[in-house]
Amino acid sequence: MQGRDLLTLADLSATDIHRLLATAKTLKSAGVKAAAAAVSQPLAGYTLAMIFEKPSLRTRATFAIGMQQLGGQVVDLQAEHLQMGVRETVPDVARNLERWVDVIMARVFEHATLEVLAEHAAIPIVNGLSDYTHPCQILADILTMQEHKGNLAGRKLAYVGDGYNVANSLLFGAGKLGYHMAVGCPEAYLPPEHVVARARGLAAESGATLELLSDPIATVRDADVVYTDSWISMGLEAEAAERERVFPPYQVNAELLRHARPDAIVMHCLPAHRGMEITDDVMDGPQSVVFDQAENRLHAQKAVLLELLTGGCN
Amino acid sequence: MQGRDLLTLADLSATDIHRLLATAKTLKSAGVKAAAAAVSQPLAGYTLAMIFEKPSLRTRATFAIGMQQLGGQVVDLQAEHLQMGVRETVPDVARNLERWVDVIMARVFEHATLEVLAEHAAIPIVNGLSDYTHPCQILADILTMQEHKGNLAGRKLAYVGDGYNVANSLLFGAGKLGYHMAVGCPEAYLPPEHVVARARGLAAESGATLELLSDPIATVRDADVVYTDSWISMGLEAEAAERERVFPPYQVNAELLRHARPDAIVMHCLPAHRGMEITDDVMDGPQSVVFDQAENRLHAQKAVLLELLTGGCN
Amino acid sequence: MQGRDLLTLADLSATDIHRLLATAKTLKSAGVKAAAAAVSQPLAGYTLAMIFEKPSLRTRATFAIGMQQLGGQVVDLQAEHLQMGVRETVPDVARNLERWVDVIMARVFEHATLEVLAEHAAIPIVNGLSDYTHPCQILADILTMQEHKGNLAGRKLAYVGDGYNVANSLLFGAGKLGYHMAVGCPEAYLPPEHVVARARGLAAESGATLELLSDPIATVRDADVVYTDSWISMGLEAEAAERERVFPPYQVNAELLRHARPDAIVMHCLPAHRGMEITDDVMDGPQSVVFDQAENRLHAQKAVLLELLTGGCN
Repeated sequence: MQGRDLLTLADLSATDIHRLLATAKTLKSAGVKAAAAAVSQPLAGYTLAMIFEKPSLRTRATFAIGMQQLGGQVVDLQAEHLQMGVRETVPDVARNLERWVDVIMARVFEHATLEVLAEHAAIPIVNGLSDYTHPCQILADILTMQEHKGNLAGRKLAYVGDGYNVANSLLFGAGKLGYHMAVGCPEAYLPPEHVVARARGLAAESGATLELLSDPIATVRDADVVYTDSWISMGLEAEAAERERVFPPYQVNAELLRHARPDAIVMHCLPAHRGMEITDDVMDGPQSVVFDQAENRLHAQKAVLLELLTGGCN
Repeated sequence: MQGRDLLTLADLSATDIHRLLATAKTLKSAGVKAAAAAVSQPLAGYTLAMIFEKPSLRTRATFAIGMQQLGGQVVDLQAEHLQMGVRETVPDVARNLERWVDVIMARVFEHATLEVLAEHAAIPIVNGLSDYTHPCQILADILTMQEHKGNLAGRKLAYVGDGYNVANSLLFGAGKLGYHMAVGCPEAYLPPEHVVARARGLAAESGATLELLSDPIATVRDADVVYTDSWISMGLEAEAAERERVFPPYQVNAELLRHARPDAIVMHCLPAHRGMEITDDVMDGPQSVVFDQAENRLHAQKAVLLELLTGGCN
Repeated sequence: MQGRDLLTLADLSATDIHRLLATAKTLKSAGVKAAAAAVSQPLAGYTLAMIFEKPSLRTRATFAIGMQQLGGQVVDLQAEHLQMGVRETVPDVARNLERWVDVIMARVFEHATLEVLAEHAAIPIVNGLSDYTHPCQILADILTMQEHKGNLAGRKLAYVGDGYNVANSLLFGAGKLGYHMAVGCPEAYLPPEHVVARARGLAAESGATLELLSDPIATVRDADVVYTDSWISMGLEAEAAERERVFPPYQVNAELLRHARPDAIVMHCLPAHRGMEITDDVMDGPQSVVFDQAENRLHAQKAVLLELLTGGCN
């Protein structure tokens, strides 16, 4: 994958994804925190530029830490200073950065910004969340699911909540890796038609089934994984009142969870709005793996950096 | 002290404090700036996360530089993006960060935020200033006092000004280390009763005497150290007019300093509001050690990081 | 140049400038990106503090990356937290920083801020753009011109646009290095008299000729280099309407460029406002070297850091 971009999982082959996951597992097995940095520094001298048009805890911390653990260096471009598209065109930002840095990770309002960066910079662009997809999150999620459920073929993931970027990427992951996925949303908040069509196209190869439902109970029935996300993603704050009216039946709570498999794991990409899309008892309960997901952001993204910059973990 | 938190000096034993100071002196004696980093890199691979809910020059610079001089890496979480307690609960921030980083240093509006972080993260939390205390500042201050006055037992520190976080921590330092302390404040701005009671409890062991006064001249009489701080600490800007009315008699100026010992040193934790709580002639005069204090932030905090993460400087 | 400040090119000797350029070329020849960092780490343990009172892409990225490629560490002081001159006086900021860091790079609204930092800090201060000059940009520009045109003596640089900080520094560069320079501006926007006088004083030694014109065609006639900059520099946004009225005849477009030498190169310090001071076809055309300039910021500034901190590249 050396030299490529990572904008959506749909752009990767299943082989690419399995290779990234294998690299992530190797990196994780070497140890966490100080131990992780002790082994080798394969990215010594490489520079990661980070751009955050929206707030971030996990993505900022894990990319910055991961890059440094691999021996590389990080520069945070401070989006409010960069004013990409206002102070300077996005292509010109790309043409500048490719001269000094080895990889750009960007969290953007509009996915098209990533595509323009990728078009004009001869270095890898990594999607750190857009309005379309969140592939690094889903790589960490798949790693987490594999850790808890082994081979995912034939497993069922139920996504309950807003059919937005995380749901989109989970659909692409299903299409690529062959896990079954049911999405339970209020009708107006289902994933966009073009996303579903693209995921169905991928699923034709992998054998995944993809269901779009409006009944949350039917959605989670027999699920191995119950996944939710904020009802009011970053940038959607203006729609808060309407969303808080329609989403409550899709709350992941003990009652809903009763309809999933008894050994189902509960996932959330965080930040969680406790008492809204997920209740305290479920998030802090024995089925929750939400902080394992958060930890795996680090391992998965180190794999992404390593694969894009050097072609792997050798 | 490995694995512990540093929220207030009152939580440490006198032995802990002396050990931190000894480590700081060893680190300082190895040299400053480039020389300091040349010796060894005991924190290679360790990550410090920094959170600043309030502005900072000294704390930001010295923690970032110190961690890197020890071989470690730093991630600034940018509090305005983190929105701790708004975007995500403080416990959830703690549960995320403990997965990736080795230590968190936070400057917070409310001390309780530090306590919640400490409760929910299994890694050390370091107080980089709260509304209650500022222990890293006071460790640097004690180091500075020892450099200029040797053994502090029996010495008198006069704090003149606002009885707030720095005064609180100096009282705990007195209680622990046995220097005498007089606090001279307008009555309404004396340190809180619970702080004084806690400090008096500690002083019973160390033999320190603690005096609360309203007369600034009596406060500084025979003092070895005259210490002041801003009358309008960060977050208290709304009270500026009232504070500027009552505090002027507590200004540290040449006239007041005349009542201290002739070899008294003058201290300020900075930033200073020249012409307010301290005059130019005193701050820039021969008795001032304010920039030595600032330098010692670096050495003291490197000791804190080293002790909390590895148990010391071996 | 070890231990000195870099506030304007006019303060350096021609020998200093040539030495910086030679160091930059040596550094660049060692390779870019990861290769650049592989060779040696001459600034290991050194710390660069960065202060940005105005936005930055190039200066932030290249100083941060360059310092780390040389083995050093960086702390961004976040000007909005630092509030230099408000929260704390500029001299006090200087007196603090000199205790911990080895060099300060600052982008400031007022050049006097740099002079005050330089007066009160015993460490090198580097101008990362002021309202007076932008010497690091011009070092990169001269490196770029030499790469494309060889020896600059006798070459003609035409600057068309706003006679502000970049034009000022280019005039000082001409005065020092002996290239001829014509400035074409609306009368009210010519470089200030004191800048022209200082540059003419330097030119007396180097043999440069300096022309101030109002006719853009006469300005670019026979030029080897056509240079422009934004009509509305950072901080001048209030004057936008008036500036957009008077500057259009000074746009660098294909028609204007026809009057320069056929092999003239086109330069811009960026960010560019496409369609304003420069047209797309020229900026993206074969004569444009604007992204080479941007790349050379990195190499030139690494030379500056190395020369100021260690006296050179040995």
